Amino acid sequence: MPLKLPGEFELIKKLTSELKVKNRDVIVGIGDDCAVLSFDKNYLELVTCDIQVAGRHFVLENLEPENIGHKAIAINISDIAAMGGLPTVCLISLILPKNISTDFVQRIYRGIDIACNKYNIQVAGGNISSGKDWAIDIFMLGKVKKRDLLLRSGANIGDNVLVTGTLGDAAAGLFIAKDRKFLLVKTKRLLQRQLAPNPRIGESKLIAASHMATAMIDVSDGLSGDIGHICERSRVGVEIYEDKLPVAKDMLEFAKSIKKNPYDLALNGGEDYELLFTVSKKNTELLISKIKKKTNTNVNIIGKILPEKEGSWLVNSDGKRIRLKLESWDHILSLPKLVSESS
Amino acid sequence: MPLKLPGEFELIKKLTSELKVKNRDVIVGIGDDCAVLSFDKNYLELVTCDIQVAGRHFVLENLEPENIGHKAIAINISDIAAMGGLPTVCLISLILPKNISTDFVQRIYRGIDIACNKYNIQVAGGNISSGKDWAIDIFMLGKVKKRDLLLRSGANIGDNVLVTGTLGDAAAGLFIAKDRKFLLVKTKRLLQRQLAPNPRIGESKLIAASHMATAMIDVSDGLSGDIGHICERSRVGVEIYEDKLPVAKDMLEFAKSIKKNPYDLALNGGEDYELLFTVSKKNTELLISKIKKKTNTNVNIIGKILPEKEGSWLVNSDGKRIRLKLESWDHILSLPKLVSESS
Repeated sequence: MPLKLPGEFELIKKLTSELKVKNRDVIVGIGDDCAVLSFDKNYLELVTCDIQVAGRHFVLENLEPENIGHKAIAINISDIAAMGGLPTVCLISLILPKNISTDFVQRIYRGIDIACNKYNIQVAGGNISSGKDWAIDIFMLGKVKKRDLLLRSGANIGDNVLVTGTLGDAAAGLFIAKDRKFLLVKTKRLLQRQLAPNPRIGESKLIAASHMATAMIDVSDGLSGDIGHICERSRVGVEIYEDKLPVAKDMLEFAKSIKKNPYDLALNGGEDYELLFTVSKKNTELLISKIKKKTNTNVNIIGKILPEKEGSWLVNSDGKRIRLKLESWDHILSLPKLVSESS
Repeated sequence: MPLKLPGEFELIKKLTSELKVKNRDVIVGIGDDCAVLSFDKNYLELVTCDIQVAGRHFVLENLEPENIGHKAIAINISDIAAMGGLPTVCLISLILPKNISTDFVQRIYRGIDIACNKYNIQVAGGNISSGKDWAIDIFMLGKVKKRDLLLRSGANIGDNVLVTGTLGDAAAGLFIAKDRKFLLVKTKRLLQRQLAPNPRIGESKLIAASHMATAMIDVSDGLSGDIGHICERSRVGVEIYEDKLPVAKDMLEFAKSIKKNPYDLALNGGEDYELLFTVSKKNTELLISKIKKKTNTNVNIIGKILPEKEGSWLVNSDGKRIRLKLESWDHILSLPKLVSESS
C-alpha cells in the first residue's frame, strides 16, 4: 500500500544508510553541499547535482526559458561555492515533452551558456530524453584547494553565525513569478532574485582563502533549514536573532503589501543562494570588513552557535526565545511552506 | 508554433554547438561515451550521465524496482567501460511521484547498491524531487590510465570491427518485458539481458591495457547506430557482415517465434551493452584469444573499416551490399525501432 513519502532529507538518509560501498577516493560523501573527492596533491574535487522539475521548481508559463537554464546552473555553482570551491565542468540531463519547440530548448541552452560563460564552466556532456514532464538535472564538478575546503561540520560553540546579502528576496519573488499582477517597477529586483540567482563565488573564494570561517552552507532550502544542516553536521545548537535577519526595504514593503511577515520569508523562504557561515568571535569583524572591501557585499551577524544540548532557538526582538523549527523548503513535498511555527 | 523535435543526437549537436566556454580541464567534451577530464599525472577522469524515464526506458508495472536501480547504474558503468576506464563514484537524482511507497524506493536503492557493490562504486550524493513521472538520472565518475584511454575517434582504414558477446538479446528481452506471455524457461536469459545488463568491465580493462584497440564504444543505441558513432568520430566508413553478427540460439528461436528477423534485432536493437571496438588486422587474433582466455568471453569479427568516402554498408550473406542506416535507439522519439530498412 502506498505510504506517504517522508521528506527529501529523511528519505535520502533512509535510502543511503543502507548503501555499503565506501571508496577511498571519497573524502566527504552524502550530507554536505557537495561530495568531496581526492584529486591531486593540492586540490580536492567537488561534485554535486540538482534536479529541477516543472511545476515543482519552476512554473513554465511564467518563465523565460533562458531563466530555467541559467538558474539550474546557478544553483549548482552555489553548492560548489558553499564548499569554498570554483566550478569547472558540468553535464546536463534534460527531460523534454514530445511536442516542445526546438527554439524553446535552444533558449534554455542560451541561459545555460550565459551562466557557464560567467564562471568559465564547460558543458562537457549530457543527455536528453522525452517524458511527460519537463525536468533539468545538472551535474557540476568543481575544485577547491585542500586547505580551503569548508564543510558544514566545523562550527564551534561560541562562533558567530554570518550571512551575506539579504534574505527572503527569492521567496518574495516567487509570489511575483506565480502571479504577475504583483510585478511592478519596485518589485522587479525581487523577481530577479527568484529567477536569476547570483551564486556568491567571489565571496566564497575570499571566505575560504581567509581560513577564518569554521563551517559554510548556501541558503537554498531556507535559513532555518540550512542552519539546521550546519547544527546537525557540527553537533551544535544555535540562536538566531530575528531582528538581525537582513531584509531589504523592497522585500519588507512587498511582504507587507501581501500581508506576509517578512521575517518569515527571510527565515523559511529559501533560494536566496546567499552564503551562511560561522566564524569565531575574534575573527568576525575582520572577515566582514574584508568581504565588504573586496566585493562590496554586506555581511551580517545573525546568530550564535550554542552547545548541542541547548538546542536551536529563534530570539524575537522582545527577547522571547522560541524553538527554531529547522524547516526546509522541501522539494519532495510541496512548494515552500512560507509560514513559520513556534512551539 | 511547436516544431517536431529532431532526434536526440541531432538536437544535442544543435544545442551544444553554440556553447562558448572551453575549459582546459576538459580533454574530450561532448561526442564520446564519457567526457574526459584532466586528473593527475597518470590518470584521466571520466564523467557520464544517463537519465531514464518511466514509460520510455522502463515499464514500471513489468519491472521489479531492484531492476530499475541496477540497470541505471549498469548502463553508466558501461559508458565508463567503453573508454577503457573503471567507475569510482556516482550521484543519483530521482524524480518520484507523490504517492509512491517508501518500500518501492528502497528497493530501487537496493538494486543500486547491488550494482555498486559489484564494481566498488560509492554513491556520494544525489537529490530527490517529486514529479508526475518517475525518472532516475545517474552521474558516474571513473578513472582511466592516460595511456589506456580509448575513444570513438581512433579507427583506422582496414581495421577489423569486433564485438564481445551476442547481439539482439536485450531487444528480444524487451518484447518479453512488455508482454509476459513470452516469458518461458527458454526465454528467461533474454529477459535478464534486458533487465540486468552486465557491463563488460573486465573485458574493457583487458582491451584497454592491450593497447591494441584503436576505437571503442558500448552497444547501447544499437549496433548500427553505435558503429555510426565510431565512423563519424573517426571519419571512416564501414562494412558490417550480416552473417557474422553473433546471435545466440535462444534469441534466434525467440525472434522466429514472434516473426521478427533476428539479424534486425542484432543490428538495430540496442541495450546489449557489449563492447564494439576496432583493431588492426595484425593484432586481431591475438586480442580475441587474450580476451577469451582471461574472461571466457567470445569476441567476433563483424566488419571492416573503410575509407570515409566509401560509406557504410551492410553485406548480406549472399554478398549483396545495402546502405547501412546508422540508426539509433532514439530515446527522445520512441521505443526502439526494430525494423531495419535498406536503401
